[in-house]
Amino acid sequence: MVNIGVIGYGYWGPNVARNFHRCPGSNLVAICDLEDKRLKAAKVAYPHLKFYSDPIELIEDDTVQAVAIVTPVKTHYRLAEAALEKGKHVFVEKPFTANGRQAEALIDLAHRKNTIIMVDHTFLFTGAVRKIKELIDAKELGSLFFYDSVRINLGLFQHDVNVIWDLAPHDLSIMNYVVPKKPIAISVQGTEHFGTNTEDVAFIAVHFDNGFMAHFHCNWLSPVKIRRTLISGDRKMMVWDDLASDEKIKIYDRGVELRSNTGIRELLVSYRSGDMHAPRISNAEALLTEAAYFVECIEKKQEPFNNGEAGWKVVRMLEAADLSLKSGGKRVVL
Amino acid sequence: MVNIGVIGYGYWGPNVARNFHRCPGSNLVAICDLEDKRLKAAKVAYPHLKFYSDPIELIEDDTVQAVAIVTPVKTHYRLAEAALEKGKHVFVEKPFTANGRQAEALIDLAHRKNTIIMVDHTFLFTGAVRKIKELIDAKELGSLFFYDSVRINLGLFQHDVNVIWDLAPHDLSIMNYVVPKKPIAISVQGTEHFGTNTEDVAFIAVHFDNGFMAHFHCNWLSPVKIRRTLISGDRKMMVWDDLASDEKIKIYDRGVELRSNTGIRELLVSYRSGDMHAPRISNAEALLTEAAYFVECIEKKQEPFNNGEAGWKVVRMLEAADLSLKSGGKRVVL
Amino acid sequence: MVNIGVIGYGYWGPNVARNFHRCPGSNLVAICDLEDKRLKAAKVAYPHLKFYSDPIELIEDDTVQAVAIVTPVKTHYRLAEAALEKGKHVFVEKPFTANGRQAEALIDLAHRKNTIIMVDHTFLFTGAVRKIKELIDAKELGSLFFYDSVRINLGLFQHDVNVIWDLAPHDLSIMNYVVPKKPIAISVQGTEHFGTNTEDVAFIAVHFDNGFMAHFHCNWLSPVKIRRTLISGDRKMMVWDDLASDEKIKIYDRGVELRSNTGIRELLVSYRSGDMHAPRISNAEALLTEAAYFVECIEKKQEPFNNGEAGWKVVRMLEAADLSLKSGGKRVVL
Amino acid sequence: MVNIGVIGYGYWGPNVARNFHRCPGSNLVAICDLEDKRLKAAKVAYPHLKFYSDPIELIEDDTVQAVAIVTPVKTHYRLAEAALEKGKHVFVEKPFTANGRQAEALIDLAHRKNTIIMVDHTFLFTGAVRKIKELIDAKELGSLFFYDSVRINLGLFQHDVNVIWDLAPHDLSIMNYVVPKKPIAISVQGTEHFGTNTEDVAFIAVHFDNGFMAHFHCNWLSPVKIRRTLISGDRKMMVWDDLASDEKIKIYDRGVELRSNTGIRELLVSYRSGDMHAPRISNAEALLTEAAYFVECIEKKQEPFNNGEAGWKVVRMLEAADLSLKSGGKRVVL
Repeated sequence: MVNIGVIGYGYWGPNVARNFHRCPGSNLVAICDLEDKRLKAAKVAYPHLKFYSDPIELIEDDTVQAVAIVTPVKTHYRLAEAALEKGKHVFVEKPFTANGRQAEALIDLAHRKNTIIMVDHTFLFTGAVRKIKELIDAKELGSLFFYDSVRINLGLFQHDVNVIWDLAPHDLSIMNYVVPKKPIAISVQGTEHFGTNTEDVAFIAVHFDNGFMAHFHCNWLSPVKIRRTLISGDRKMMVWDDLASDEKIKIYDRGVELRSNTGIRELLVSYRSGDMHAPRISNAEALLTEAAYFVECIEKKQEPFNNGEAGWKVVRMLEAADLSLKSGGKRVVL
Repeated sequence: MVNIGVIGYGYWGPNVARNFHRCPGSNLVAICDLEDKRLKAAKVAYPHLKFYSDPIELIEDDTVQAVAIVTPVKTHYRLAEAALEKGKHVFVEKPFTANGRQAEALIDLAHRKNTIIMVDHTFLFTGAVRKIKELIDAKELGSLFFYDSVRINLGLFQHDVNVIWDLAPHDLSIMNYVVPKKPIAISVQGTEHFGTNTEDVAFIAVHFDNGFMAHFHCNWLSPVKIRRTLISGDRKMMVWDDLASDEKIKIYDRGVELRSNTGIRELLVSYRSGDMHAPRISNAEALLTEAAYFVECIEKKQEPFNNGEAGWKVVRMLEAADLSLKSGGKRVVL
Repeated sequence: MVNIGVIGYGYWGPNVARNFHRCPGSNLVAICDLEDKRLKAAKVAYPHLKFYSDPIELIEDDTVQAVAIVTPVKTHYRLAEAALEKGKHVFVEKPFTANGRQAEALIDLAHRKNTIIMVDHTFLFTGAVRKIKELIDAKELGSLFFYDSVRINLGLFQHDVNVIWDLAPHDLSIMNYVVPKKPIAISVQGTEHFGTNTEDVAFIAVHFDNGFMAHFHCNWLSPVKIRRTLISGDRKMMVWDDLASDEKIKIYDRGVELRSNTGIRELLVSYRSGDMHAPRISNAEALLTEAAYFVECIEKKQEPFNNGEAGWKVVRMLEAADLSLKSGGKRVVL
Repeated sequence: MVNIGVIGYGYWGPNVARNFHRCPGSNLVAICDLEDKRLKAAKVAYPHLKFYSDPIELIEDDTVQAVAIVTPVKTHYRLAEAALEKGKHVFVEKPFTANGRQAEALIDLAHRKNTIIMVDHTFLFTGAVRKIKELIDAKELGSLFFYDSVRINLGLFQHDVNVIWDLAPHDLSIMNYVVPKKPIAISVQGTEHFGTNTEDVAFIAVHFDNGFMAHFHCNWLSPVKIRRTLISGDRKMMVWDDLASDEKIKIYDRGVELRSNTGIRELLVSYRSGDMHAPRISNAEALLTEAAYFVECIEKKQEPFNNGEAGWKVVRMLEAADLSLKSGGKRVVL
């Protein structure tokens, strides 16, 4: 049984608290928020916990073994550092930190303190993403052509981060998880419309070796909500529509083959079009699965796959994306 | 009555011939193709015409007043030049020419010869595009935020051009037609997978002043066929799904407003979400409408809106796109 | 402020309790259930209420002014009768009663006791149904042709009622509410597959004067979930897809007109096809709106539109449907 | 090589002519129509054929070996009889005849003359229907629960037949082909709206032994076009959406099982929900496949599966449907 304290009870915090509360291996013991109104709401939901308005007090509470940090990104470093220093395990909301150096320092600190960092890339615990990883690991799609993600809607404007830091962490963490290739550079086009230096539309290209590339469309100004990822390979191709109520993943037995006829200059590309298959996807709540995995990693002293390094990889790409954006789309090497 | 000769009876030529044949104002008199098999097919369909295997002979036929050039792009310049020199009007398949200089030379020549050039941007004559232009001209969408086009499928590989020259002319010509803004630069990311130096996946960003931007995803390797354009403005937003059998255009009474509270630093963005409206779209065959318009322009000695200059604008963007692509995505000024 | 006691905390009861709890005008004071496990769950959610395992004790509790009966249909009459006798207002789950005579007796009793009966036809409080009523009341659809409802899925088998008593109350209550016509007869075809005399597939036709008719497909054995209603008139036609996340209601400016050419025997039917319009639908929680309306009716001593008589009309049609079903589909006059 | 004469060049006739023209085994030699305008159109399309305005002359033309009758249903009997009497094979548009007696007489006559009757149930030659038959024959769906077809749109009014005779022949012929069970009775509800005694909306229930039933919704007054068939069994369930451009057939690995616990009265129904599979469907033109099959049957002196008897079964059901309709929905034994 791991005693958990949750810092931050705003938009996402109640979900984190609820799942650590109902997760069999964990014991929600304390909640902290700076705002009275939110703390009051927490008290109504969990009358028997301890409540703090100062996160450092929660961190220093001896009954707390692990801290979930569900606060704005700019505070992650300070809070995670304080918790790790006290030897507490940390569960940090995505994006992990505001820049790569902070991520590196935390990873280093956790290593020295022998504690666990888990970055909350919740999507990695959905049935859909697990199925996609399974397919790619089993080479079902063959050699990969491209990864294309569209995550757009008439979105909630963030005031502290642009659309890339808001939406892309989901897709970058998913791509890093399922695609067994190392990105080498990033180039970004984007724009903003309200004179705030906060981009609300962005197109992110991630470059790899050998022709594979990835692309991400993030947008807060779209008339329609789309969350669709295409992954195409030479054996099969797939579509993941996260908004579909059923058949979220469709695998097409379609492919393209190059037949090089020696002696003939012309390219011979042949197409194959077969059945479509929509595997059944588990609809277990991802955050509960992730909470149980956090507890398991702590108890078994095991490094999570969504550890600080996984978080750092995403942050590093976000930093590079911002750099490319500010330079008018130049290719920034990772 | 205008006498038309069609050069090229391959993939698109039969459609051009059929529509000039049935268009009340035009008189299809001759067809030319280099391949016997195609010429034979043309003879079966229109037994009473003249047939040529040498395009120059068709061009020099005195009964031919206007020539439709429906051949590979690399031949457009030579054939159009020959026709214009003979004082014939020309209808040229898109893309207009293989480069901007050729386009400029043809425009100049037509001007001197007092003949008409029409570039076959067929989509501009569809009910959907006409409705979109009507909406934007009437300021229905308000101030425009972005234009986003996705035109992808498991496509027919072209051997002589890449996916940009194959698919983007449609969308660039449409954007140029409906968006009353002047593009200033272009940057492109793309990749290819068969060692042929022919890109099969490309992402094209087109830059404008004042925050508006456009983006085009062209792709021959997609598991699913998508032809969808989003145009978003501060008053309304719209989606054009060209594959929808019904309700191709949906106009959302949705918008975003910035309210600047003096004294308060924070950005206040407010959303509005109202009804959706799908206007009835004419489903007249675009190519027939275009054929009639070609005849009308000839008879009224009137410059078509899809003239050589419209074709040149698209070619110039394609050239810039290729340049950006080859330079790893650098922004190329138009 | 009206004090509410809820009897039944199974599938739907928690929703009823939650909404009377959060509704500003009502005060949830007591919950009753026969099962310990359910009562325990209620105590966790609302620690400060009174709890009963005997419904009569709850009914006799003097602090309770109104009783919500959310139990199996066969118990509705007995519980509602007891509550009405004690002068309590009742909110009864649909279907109102197990037969028409029970409904009539309760209506009579409420009349004598000067108390209010509201039957929980929740759908009548959704934004979609309210919009449909508004459209039909404003004669937007013109003269009505037909009403067609499909409510099918791989459903939860009920053990005490057949698919008609389970699913049709929704649609019959909606039709009675929005269509200003009086049904005159009903005929039903159905079947069952597990030897239990419980029909799992049924097709219900409801007959009216003047050519209008209604049809309902209820089904527990469908591979796909469909909840779609078509209402067609001579001026406009509409589709309500309750599973659509957006654009639940689509109104088609389509119609059919009969032009009788005197002297010519032949029927001239002409079609009209115009725009489609999807009005914005309120997504307020229907049950909360209904709870507030219950309180309002009690406080203003006002008869609800979903009163006992509305419930009786549905029960009477269900009885007739069963009768028709058992007689092999004979038309049963209402 | 079989010489074919086509009688009737209205709506469907040109398709029949075109396919017998391009079918390798057949030789289109003559076309007949009563209307000059249509005959003229036929002459433009096939200049070298013989043309008749009197069908009897075409039938008596010695070069004609087989006659395709694509005329209004009321003329089928007379024309088919004349052709069969002359020893010609006949291909008859659906529905086969105006009543069962006519069908029986023609079947008898063909038997005596040793000629072939094929009824043009074109859908039986589509890739979709062939795949469905294959699935059911292979017991993929298990024991069948129900067959439900919806074929509705804002349709072309027929003046000589009601919506049942217009639309149901498609679905009845498909059901008879794929479901290996014998229908025993039929009951129909319908209505009409223009005072013409021509029903424009109809709901047809077809009864079988053992709980299986079929239902058909035919409608000329629907705002939306739907052509969807559900077939549900205890092992798997399927949906055929004929308007889907892709994935017309979806097979759901879903089922329902009854587990009878001896000693326990309660019904235990358990659900199973697995993957979905959309098999690739051939998109060969059905009418061409059928034309080739007609020729093959003639040359091999082989009885087609869509013979006169198959046509008679459909006509008999249409007759029973009309009878049920006129009697207010009574069950009519087949």
